[in-house]
Amino acid sequence: MAFHMNECIRKTKQGIPLTNAEITELVRGITKEPLIPDYQLSAWLMAVCFSGLTDAETAALTMAMRDSGQTMHWDLGGPVADKHSTGGVGDKTTLILAPIVASCGVFMPKMSGRGLGHTGGTIDKLESIPGFSTALAPDAFLKQVQDIRCAVAMQTGDLAPADKKLYALRDVTETVDSIPLICASIMSKKLATGADHILLDVKVGSGAFMKNDEDASELARLMLAAAKADGRDCTAVLTDMDRPLGMCIGNAIEVREAIEVLAGDADCELGQFCISLAAELLRMAGIGTKEICLNKAREAVTGGAALERFAQMIVAQGGDASVTEQPEKLALSPCSRTLTAASAGWISSMQSETIGRASVLLGAGRMTKNDSIDFGAGIRLHVKYGDAVSKGDPLLTMYAAKESQLDEAEQMLKQAVAVAENKPETRPLIRNMYSTADE
Amino acid sequence: MAFHMNECIRKTKQGIPLTNAEITELVRGITKEPLIPDYQLSAWLMAVCFSGLTDAETAALTMAMRDSGQTMHWDLGGPVADKHSTGGVGDKTTLILAPIVASCGVFMPKMSGRGLGHTGGTIDKLESIPGFSTALAPDAFLKQVQDIRCAVAMQTGDLAPADKKLYALRDVTETVDSIPLICASIMSKKLATGADHILLDVKVGSGAFMKNDEDASELARLMLAAAKADGRDCTAVLTDMDRPLGMCIGNAIEVREAIEVLAGDADCELGQFCISLAAELLRMAGIGTKEICLNKAREAVTGGAALERFAQMIVAQGGDASVTEQPEKLALSPCSRTLTAASAGWISSMQSETIGRASVLLGAGRMTKNDSIDFGAGIRLHVKYGDAVSKGDPLLTMYAAKESQLDEAEQMLKQAVAVAENKPETRPLIRNMYSTADE
Repeated sequence: MAFHMNECIRKTKQGIPLTNAEITELVRGITKEPLIPDYQLSAWLMAVCFSGLTDAETAALTMAMRDSGQTMHWDLGGPVADKHSTGGVGDKTTLILAPIVASCGVFMPKMSGRGLGHTGGTIDKLESIPGFSTALAPDAFLKQVQDIRCAVAMQTGDLAPADKKLYALRDVTETVDSIPLICASIMSKKLATGADHILLDVKVGSGAFMKNDEDASELARLMLAAAKADGRDCTAVLTDMDRPLGMCIGNAIEVREAIEVLAGDADCELGQFCISLAAELLRMAGIGTKEICLNKAREAVTGGAALERFAQMIVAQGGDASVTEQPEKLALSPCSRTLTAASAGWISSMQSETIGRASVLLGAGRMTKNDSIDFGAGIRLHVKYGDAVSKGDPLLTMYAAKESQLDEAEQMLKQAVAVAENKPETRPLIRNMYSTADE
Repeated sequence: MAFHMNECIRKTKQGIPLTNAEITELVRGITKEPLIPDYQLSAWLMAVCFSGLTDAETAALTMAMRDSGQTMHWDLGGPVADKHSTGGVGDKTTLILAPIVASCGVFMPKMSGRGLGHTGGTIDKLESIPGFSTALAPDAFLKQVQDIRCAVAMQTGDLAPADKKLYALRDVTETVDSIPLICASIMSKKLATGADHILLDVKVGSGAFMKNDEDASELARLMLAAAKADGRDCTAVLTDMDRPLGMCIGNAIEVREAIEVLAGDADCELGQFCISLAAELLRMAGIGTKEICLNKAREAVTGGAALERFAQMIVAQGGDASVTEQPEKLALSPCSRTLTAASAGWISSMQSETIGRASVLLGAGRMTKNDSIDFGAGIRLHVKYGDAVSKGDPLLTMYAAKESQLDEAEQMLKQAVAVAENKPETRPLIRNMYSTADE
């Protein structure tokens, strides 16, 4: 039967599900001749924003986008894991998780991206390590994974190219925020990278793309359904992004914080968080029960195996591994300023989006794709949500190349940390966890 | 302030009204550099389909589109009237209305279009008169209106060019059916043609674009608001399109029917209908009270002035005016076939869309813009909605160039006329009337 894009737009507009064949043809027309005109794609995307897609349509869209380019297959003689974060402020989880998981016997070939806007990117953070290269040729990437079980490289262009083109169109047509489209975008790439066990870190809160638990749960549910439809083992963790993750926001400063955890600090909030996530990946990979995996992950941190694995990864990717022993080699920017509490009380809110945007002003992130990054810029928090403070206690320290950047960021950051008279409710960092194995 | 199309899309998507300045810039970007990319326009159009536009936005869009090209101004020393139909089956109203109105002292310079799909166009109907030209140069058009107060010509390209481009995009992105967009499309052209008094014939029913009274009323309300915002006098008449208008569907055959009315048949349903609409235009133009205008319009028909004016218009536009005396000169196609009632009863439905599509099969209309028309093809109804019939009574006669066309159309028409055992409810042809003068 002939494919008519008009018909697809009309159906989606009216809430009539597309057939698998229609979705396959639609995705084909994104990257292959005869191309569907952008104006028809964008009308369809907007219709999806309003009408949504069924679970079956979302899964079919995900699969078709996965198949729009190269799909990877691993033959490593052991379980292969992957992890994705929907993007947060201070999110250095991959830097800690990958070495833990690899040191416990699971392969983790990780493709990652640069940061844009108020959320940072793993690739930028790793590039703050002198000499570290994230542009790995396929052969070198494979060899490194075979040798030390982990590698973090820049995503190559041929994974899910339909997603790349569709995302660019969504970006200029205000159609980014549809949950089925977000699911297809994330999962098409994750499924194309070929891991058997996938951990999805769905950030939820003011600093995240998903602003509330309901949306985050819906996204998690759809991503699990797509993973299941492709026969993958998948867990989605909903984690709090009403506050930054950990105490540091930036690049070099976040690598320092990751090294502090990997050097044995298993009990700080960030350490506990990463160990929980690592344990879940180990459990999925069949390493043992939840309890056994928690112990293994914890031992990897406290016993030094994870830090050693991180050092091996740095060496393999051309970087200076001595930073794992002397994190102060990761230089911070020369200008700094500390903000203090104007009154005594409890830290009742830390607006992560504002903090993320302030870190961009300091030089730690990009406004547009072509901006360059000051690896030494960033923010160190001295307090966390729920902490008690006295008047004059330091709240945070900013680092930047120029005093003027500190001035600008200070204006923004003054509003970002609130001190209340009463102790706020305790809020767990992990809000919920769903798994394809749950049913 | 800089204009950002992204921002406009986002606002409309979220139901936040655009400012007049934003709408002006948006419409400017449809036809003038820097052009807004089609993919952004189509995303915005789809957002409008879901979110709608406020009355103020619709009026601003209409004005901006009106101003995208030439706007006409008349200086004729008398009231200038215009009329628009949203498109129906068997709609020859303009052919009857324009001569009546002109013969009663009101100017009616009418721009019209060709037919497409199941609805016919006034231009095609007039071109079935031997020699008749609808492509008038602006000077000739003006002179004819000055001389005899009426002319019907093909719309020129420079009226509301933003509408032309936007309509083409709506057509391929399933965004035609938004009522505010329909209003802006119709009214931008009507306001650009510069008449002071505008009659809008909003067809409602299965054979029309507006399928129910609610949508038709909403469209009427929006069009009146736009007219009022531009200081025009406007009346919208909601008329039934669950049945064809009059007894003939085609081109030559509809001109014949129009001539029958103009030759004095003021009492048939079509005659009454056209006299009512003409009277409303005369009332708007200040000719007198509603009653006086009804009498004047009726006298124009019964006294022969309207037919004489029609003959003058035919002569002025190069046609053979003897058809007004000998309508049989308007030849019908050679093959014909009559369908008869299979049982006795009452005519309970005449599906106008099906009848319109059947007339296209017979050769009377176009499927695509480049199809040619058989002026002699069409359908003559022998019964109308609510009539009593005996078994074997003729229901309709088809005319076409080839027997095979009759075969095809017969299949379709068999379903189009229903005979019921009980007499159906009476349904007035004019369902409602709204005017800018109502408040």
